[in-house]
Order: sequence, then C-alpha cells, then structure tokens
Amino acid sequence: MREFLLIGIGAGDPDYLTLQAIKAINRVDVFFVLDKRAETAELTRFRRQVCEQFATDRPWRFVTLQDPVRDQGQERYTSVVEDWHDARARLLEQAIRTELEEGQCGALLLWGDPALYDSAMRLMEIIQARGNLALDYRVIPGITSVQALAAGHRIPLNRIGEPVHVTTGRQLAKGFPEDLDAVLVMLDGDLSYRKVMEEDMEIFWGAYLGTEDEILISGPAKDVTPRIEQARLTGRAAKGWIMDTYLLRRTRRSD
Amino acid sequence: MREFLLIGIGAGDPDYLTLQAIKAINRVDVFFVLDKRAETAELTRFRRQVCEQFATDRPWRFVTLQDPVRDQGQERYTSVVEDWHDARARLLEQAIRTELEEGQCGALLLWGDPALYDSAMRLMEIIQARGNLALDYRVIPGITSVQALAAGHRIPLNRIGEPVHVTTGRQLAKGFPEDLDAVLVMLDGDLSYRKVMEEDMEIFWGAYLGTEDEILISGPAKDVTPRIEQARLTGRAAKGWIMDTYLLRRTRRSD
Ligand SMILES: C[S@@+](CC[C@H](N)C(=O)[O-])C[C@H]1O[C@@H](n2cnc3c(N)ncnc32)[C@H](O)[C@@H]1O
Ligand SMILES: C[S@@+](CC[C@H](N)C(=O)[O-])C[C@H]1O[C@@H](n2cnc3c(N)ncnc32)[C@H](O)[C@@H]1O
Repeated sequence: MREFLLIGIGAGDPDYLTLQAIKAINRVDVFFVLDKRAETAELTRFRRQVCEQFATDRPWRFVTLQDPVRDQGQERYTSVVEDWHDARARLLEQAIRTELEEGQCGALLLWGDPALYDSAMRLMEIIQARGNLALDYRVIPGITSVQALAAGHRIPLNRIGEPVHVTTGRQLAKGFPEDLDAVLVMLDGDLSYRKVMEEDMEIFWGAYLGTEDEILISGPAKDVTPRIEQARLTGRAAKGWIMDTYLLRRTRRSD
Repeated sequence: MREFLLIGIGAGDPDYLTLQAIKAINRVDVFFVLDKRAETAELTRFRRQVCEQFATDRPWRFVTLQDPVRDQGQERYTSVVEDWHDARARLLEQAIRTELEEGQCGALLLWGDPALYDSAMRLMEIIQARGNLALDYRVIPGITSVQALAAGHRIPLNRIGEPVHVTTGRQLAKGFPEDLDAVLVMLDGDLSYRKVMEEDMEIFWGAYLGTEDEILISGPAKDVTPRIEQARLTGRAAKGWIMDTYLLRRTRRSD
C-alpha cells in the first residue's frame, strides 16, 4: 500500500497555506508534478518554493511528468476531457509505481482547493478503478481563487439567503443563468461575460489573485470592460499567461 | 482611524488556519465576539483556544457582545435579516468605539470563510455608511465547510465543466434548481432535501466537519436518509447543537 496526498496550497499567496497542508507536506517523500505548459512554469516554481520553505522534516524529491497534450477540439468537451484524464492517470500510475516505494508517501500540490475545477481526485479514482496499484489517498483543502477574489474586493460571495453559483466561461457563454442574480466565473480565457452582460450588471474582477501581481477591477460591467481588457493584455504581455476570476451580478439599490 | 480584520479561521479543524490568519491574529489588540446562543458556546471556546495558541506576539483581550435576538418570523426573510444586521452593526460600532483606541487593531474571528453566509462584511459596510467611526477593514479568507465536506468525502465540488451551486435549506425547499445536476446545501435546520429528492439522487452529508466529532454519510439519498436523521438526533442530544452541510446530486453512470 502506498499513501498519496492531494494537498491544496491555496491560489496565489504562500500565506494561504494551512497548518494542515504544512503538516501534510512534511510527511511526503515524493512530490509529483504534472507540468502543463511553459506558461505554468511559474506555478511549478511556486510549488518548489513551498517545498523548500516548508518541507523541512525529512528528505523529499520532485518528480516532474510531462503532461499529455489535450485535444483542443470544441466538440464533445466532456469526453475530450475524460480521455485526457485517462491518459494523465496512466502516466501518474506509472510514475508512482516506479518512483514511490511501498510504505512511502507521495503527493500532488494543487493550486487552490483540490475539489474545485481540478482533476486530481478523478485521477486517483481512475487509478483505483484500474486496480493495478494499491493506493490510499487523502484530500487537504486549500483557499480557492474565488475566496481570494472575495477577500480582495471585500465582497460576500452571496447576497442574504441567496445562492453562490460558480461556473466556467464556457457555461456562461451559453447565457446568464435564469433565476440567478450573480455568478462567479472561472476558466474563462475569453471574458465571456461580454456576451451576456446587461445594462444593470456590475463586475468584480481579479487576476493573479493573492500574488504580488494581483489586479482588482470593479464597477458597472459595461464601463470597466475596457480597463479589464487592457489589464489582461498588459498582464499577458508581461508574464506570458494570465489567471483571472470574476463575480458578475445585477446591481441592487441595497448594495 | 482604527484597523479592523475579518479573519476566517476555517470551519472546524484548528489546522485549517492559514499562515495569513495566524499573522493577522498576531496584530490584533481586541477580539470582538458576537455571541449568538448558548449552543454556540463551543464555537466561542474554539475561538478563544485559537487565540491562546496562536496570538503570542502581543497582549490581546476578548470583548464579548450579547448578540441581538433575531425576529424568527418566516415572512420577509430578507428584511428581517437586514434589521438584525442593523442592530448588530450598531452594537459592534458602539463596542469598537469604547473598547478599541485609535491606532489599535480589532478583529472578528469568523467561522469558515468571511465571504460565505456570514454577515461580518455587511456589518463593516453598515458602520462605514453610518459614518460615525473611521474604520478600515481587511478580509482574510478561511477554509469553508463546503471544502471540508468535499475533502472528507473525497469528492470534487463540480463535475467536469459543470457549475458549483451552493444554496440554503430555505432555497432548496422551494425545489431542486432546474438545469442543475448538483447542489450544495448549508443553513438547513430541517434536511430540506427530503422534500425535493428524486429516485436517482445521491447525497454526501457531513456534520461537525473538521472536528473530532465529524460524521460523514453518503449513498443513494432515499436509502441513507434514516441514517442521517438518526445521526442528527444523536448529535443534537449529545452536543446540544448540530452544523451540517451536504451535496445532493443526480447519480450518473460515469461516477
Ligand atoms: C483549473 S482552475 C483551478 C482552480 C483552483 N483549484 C482553485 O481552487 O482556485 C483554474 C482557474 O482558476 C482561476 N484562478 C486560479 N488561481 C487564480 C488566481 N490566483 N487569480 C485569479 N484566478 C485564478 C482562473 O479562473 C483559472 O482559469
Ligand atoms: C452561517 S453559515 C457560515 C458558513 C461559514 N462561513 C463557512 O465558510 O463554512 C453556517 C452553516 O455552515 C455550515 N457549516 C459550518 N461549519 C460546519 C461544519 N463544521 N460542519 C458542517 N457544516 C458546517 C452549516 O450548514 C451551517 O448551517
């Protein structure tokens, strides 16, 4: 039996680490890294710094895996993603078998919280279902980018008694959800809200949240859109990548 | 000018504290406690323990305020809550004025994350809008009960590319949201899902998450309901109060 930890490290600020995450990090023999693209090199560096700073109790090492390329077809989004998860799971299983001994502890350091738009738990389930490797895993929660956004703008995620709805750019592009007043949007390469925004809507937008490069912009959606577009261009040009999240909601007199 | 911190301390496990929260706690002169009901005495004790363990850099003290009673009428829920917030804000403003000197730092230690079904940010906004007290505040995110639930059950909050919808028992009782496959439910004194569950639904339920008394129950909603009801009765009888959260979703073959 091998032990495996999915450790949420928060979405940007090393001070988002919880004591639970730090304790978990100190039990790990091998940190596996699924390296996505050149543009996420900075995130990999961040993970390594976290280990160097906090994994002080025992020797550990990093094993970096070349992430399989994802089919970029727009059709059948779910099955494309499922195929990609299968490929990643096989890759990770192979790496665990060769790099982690029985009785040792492996881990993935996951951006934000492992339960929010992250595939690591699915990889674990696939590996367990394949049944070739005895693996026991645990999940350590972490501060999400949505929470970093709320804290940065000092806005509650919900209005009194109302729901919190987190969705993707892809879903939002299909239309602003009926019956809802507010949506939080992640995984949006394209500022999809521009397609669905209405006169009375306001936006609370954040990029590189929690980091030294954090940008916060808020106001009536139609008024601040040019500033957000500009900030995205500038950020992309300077760093080569951008991660942004936002809350889009109908304005109410009571706010 | 007085400084005020809204510090998320996580929803149950003292190890959910982030480094950011610990640093913030060490800048505080006065911790204000809005004490709700006898049944939350345990939560107040928890806060005090957090301070005793982590606020080691400087002297601090606790100021406990008797929370105004909330009108329990079922009508006009939102305005009842708004009135209650106004009363609380006045109470807190008064306490800050008398207990916190200019240049000092006050704080509320908030269960879970300050942005999720918590009124502290609204209290700050009301105090600022009243304009009698110069107050600058910051928000420190914390691990929510929703994340503790996901970690405990080892389930992602979202299915691939689909939304995360967090709502209250009161909202759920009106019906399972159309167009959605899954809802997370908080603030449900009544297991409202029993009114809306369908044949094909499964539930992931958790109480006292993150604490030593954590209870996790999952399975087809109609099958596990008696066990959940029993666990709630037993928990209430033993501790005098219960806090529970759950994910209710349609079962899919792919899970
Ligand atoms: C694959 S999801 C992972 C989310 C992560 N598990 C979390 O808990 O925040 C990546 C998306 O999260 C959002 N995101 C993550 N970190 C962010 C940050 N520091 N600032 C702004 N958005 C961020 C962006 O919307 C990005 O497209
Ligand atoms: C007023 S809300 C506050 C939520 C908190 N701000 C958070 O981030 O989790 C209280 C509700 O949160 C949920 N809750 C909070 N802590 C919990 C715990 N440890 N276990 C289960 N549910 C919890 C319950 O649904 C409860 O009714």
